[in-house]
Amino acid sequence: MPDAYRLIDVPAGLRNVAVTDTEIGDVRGLEGFYHYRQYSAVDLARECRFEEIWFLLFEGHLPTPAELSAFSAEIAPLRRIPPEVEVVLPALSEAGGESPGALDGLRTALSLSAAARGLRPWLDLDPPARRGDALFLCAVVPTLITALYRLGRNEEIVSPRDDLGYAANYLYMMRGEMAPEDETAAIERYLISTIDHGFNASTFTARVVAGTGADLGACVVAALGALSGPLHGGAPSRALDALEAIGEPRNAAVWVERQLAAGEKLMGFGHAVYRTEDPRSAMLKEIAQALGGHRVATAIAVEREILTTIKRLKSGTEIHTNVEYYAGIVMERCGVPPEMFTPTFAASRVIGWCANVLEQAAANKIIRPAARYVGPEPPQPVPPLDARTGS
Amino acid sequence: MPDAYRLIDVPAGLRNVAVTDTEIGDVRGLEGFYHYRQYSAVDLARECRFEEIWFLLFEGHLPTPAELSAFSAEIAPLRRIPPEVEVVLPALSEAGGESPGALDGLRTALSLSAAARGLRPWLDLDPPARRGDALFLCAVVPTLITALYRLGRNEEIVSPRDDLGYAANYLYMMRGEMAPEDETAAIERYLISTIDHGFNASTFTARVVAGTGADLGACVVAALGALSGPLHGGAPSRALDALEAIGEPRNAAVWVERQLAAGEKLMGFGHAVYRTEDPRSAMLKEIAQALGGHRVATAIAVEREILTTIKRLKSGTEIHTNVEYYAGIVMERCGVPPEMFTPTFAASRVIGWCANVLEQAAANKIIRPAARYVGPEPPQPVPPLDARTGS
Repeated sequence: MPDAYRLIDVPAGLRNVAVTDTEIGDVRGLEGFYHYRQYSAVDLARECRFEEIWFLLFEGHLPTPAELSAFSAEIAPLRRIPPEVEVVLPALSEAGGESPGALDGLRTALSLSAAARGLRPWLDLDPPARRGDALFLCAVVPTLITALYRLGRNEEIVSPRDDLGYAANYLYMMRGEMAPEDETAAIERYLISTIDHGFNASTFTARVVAGTGADLGACVVAALGALSGPLHGGAPSRALDALEAIGEPRNAAVWVERQLAAGEKLMGFGHAVYRTEDPRSAMLKEIAQALGGHRVATAIAVEREILTTIKRLKSGTEIHTNVEYYAGIVMERCGVPPEMFTPTFAASRVIGWCANVLEQAAANKIIRPAARYVGPEPPQPVPPLDARTGS
Repeated sequence: MPDAYRLIDVPAGLRNVAVTDTEIGDVRGLEGFYHYRQYSAVDLARECRFEEIWFLLFEGHLPTPAELSAFSAEIAPLRRIPPEVEVVLPALSEAGGESPGALDGLRTALSLSAAARGLRPWLDLDPPARRGDALFLCAVVPTLITALYRLGRNEEIVSPRDDLGYAANYLYMMRGEMAPEDETAAIERYLISTIDHGFNASTFTARVVAGTGADLGACVVAALGALSGPLHGGAPSRALDALEAIGEPRNAAVWVERQLAAGEKLMGFGHAVYRTEDPRSAMLKEIAQALGGHRVATAIAVEREILTTIKRLKSGTEIHTNVEYYAGIVMERCGVPPEMFTPTFAASRVIGWCANVLEQAAANKIIRPAARYVGPEPPQPVPPLDARTGS
């Protein structure tokens, strides 16, 4: 067989297979470090505004003050839901049924918004037009998320406010009133820390769809689908459920023993890539501590008990708290309800997806692997219908 | 670096990289042969009804007469659009704007239908429930496509008829009246021949999303996005446009010379995988000839001129007519307008996607590759906003 047709074997699930070059960022699991462009993501979350990082991911460098103002002004009007979509949103919310925390309402609303705005295949667009479509999708997602949330609670949709930064506006649209400054700052850091995280399954999905030249809406809608999978989007709310089930720190050891004995996962602990402390978890823990409160104190004490118990029961296994544990604590403390945890994650990750889609478009390479057929050898004669007797 | 983190280099675009084993089918590009399970797809298209092949892809064997009746009875009620979706469909069609041939209306409507039916992550479902969700999606797609088509033309939606087979019902819902038998038979063969075709980009997309445990609606909506990309879904209507531009067979040689001189693609000719005659093209040409008519005769004469001219101009290059050329001719001859070419393709391919999603779910393996970071080395210190002077 010519080389052009010879299959190449790789590890299951394409693990460690380098699909593409990227200049957007990476995760170093051994070091407990991840970065956007050449900067530590945690440094950026501590020191920058959300819009700066959005600019960094799209443009490749941090903005000057003038660039930041221009960028913020460019984004603000794009936050508004297209009017023809806003009028059908209540009907969409109604027809989609009740599914708190699910991403399917957003999937439908974003798909419609992309069509309403007339997004066309990026293959037919020049780079500025592609960038414009990406900005629109990233800007409108938080508005759609909060609108669907409020409609589900029979509350009026709250329109975005041009004078507010990304995080403040997000909490404002969700609550219908301004959030306290410390909560806004905490959520802004959380959102920055989740904009991107290496070549995860939803980012990869966005790039596969982008490889076909499709419109950016198609790419992001597909990525949302991947994020909705329980093996990817995870469930920060499940870590909170565990905390709820444990109640008091003194119950933690028994809870861990029971979970392990039952072969159940410890939600909020362990990560596929990190072999040391999850840098997002460390930052979020610090944020939670600064916010303070009884729940935070309990969470910290329970974490200590859980880690001690795991160490005792599974000596040699080094396990760490992952991003979900303190993400849930921080969001709950800042008035983001559990059903909004995954949508809030999507609100920032859409920027990582779009940066990847723009990079894939610039590379203009279809991603089309192969599968190995392992069924019975063809061609076998087709038995006539009335001669078939079951198999 | 431990092996667990060492990147594996493969050809660009994952070409020939075997992502998974499959028992669904394969394409043998060198031989001009493709198959569903152990049967030649062309044999199946010639000898079977559409529902038999749907059953074959889902169940792994051709149905007995009793199984076929039971399967047809199971599918019929699933064709109906969920009532809560049907009432908002006109508003969706309105808000989505006019985009003939685009898949974005279907993307939105299918996303909503999946939510309305309450589809949940397959990871939380047993195999029969997953199969039920897949049957629903495959059954409702043709109804959504034809409903959106008619709404776009300000016509009443035509409900499916339980007494009609797949192809007859599809043409009936599109036209609002029964199609002649020879046209129904031709479209049925076309639809069977496009149900699946190896590990193409949309099928791969469906499996990547399925790898995360997401609901089947998320998988199919993502695949629709990939199919909407001009580098994948192709454009049977563009081949027809070329035929239109050529007009008479005697103009074909000059047209080819001009296209090649301008570096333009010859729509309808050449294929990424086949190095010999596309078996779908051969079958569709035969179907077109049997249907007859002036347009078909012209198309055959133009094809002959084009292939002769290419041979003369590019000696040594063997180029063949691909599926798009005669697919367009057959669909046009059977009253399927050009803007419905790609949606009609999607109407049958959804079955291939779902068969692949069910297989991926059974394997339960996340597909999560890697990317190689090639940007400036991190971590670099974050410059304060007011110290930045542009880059």
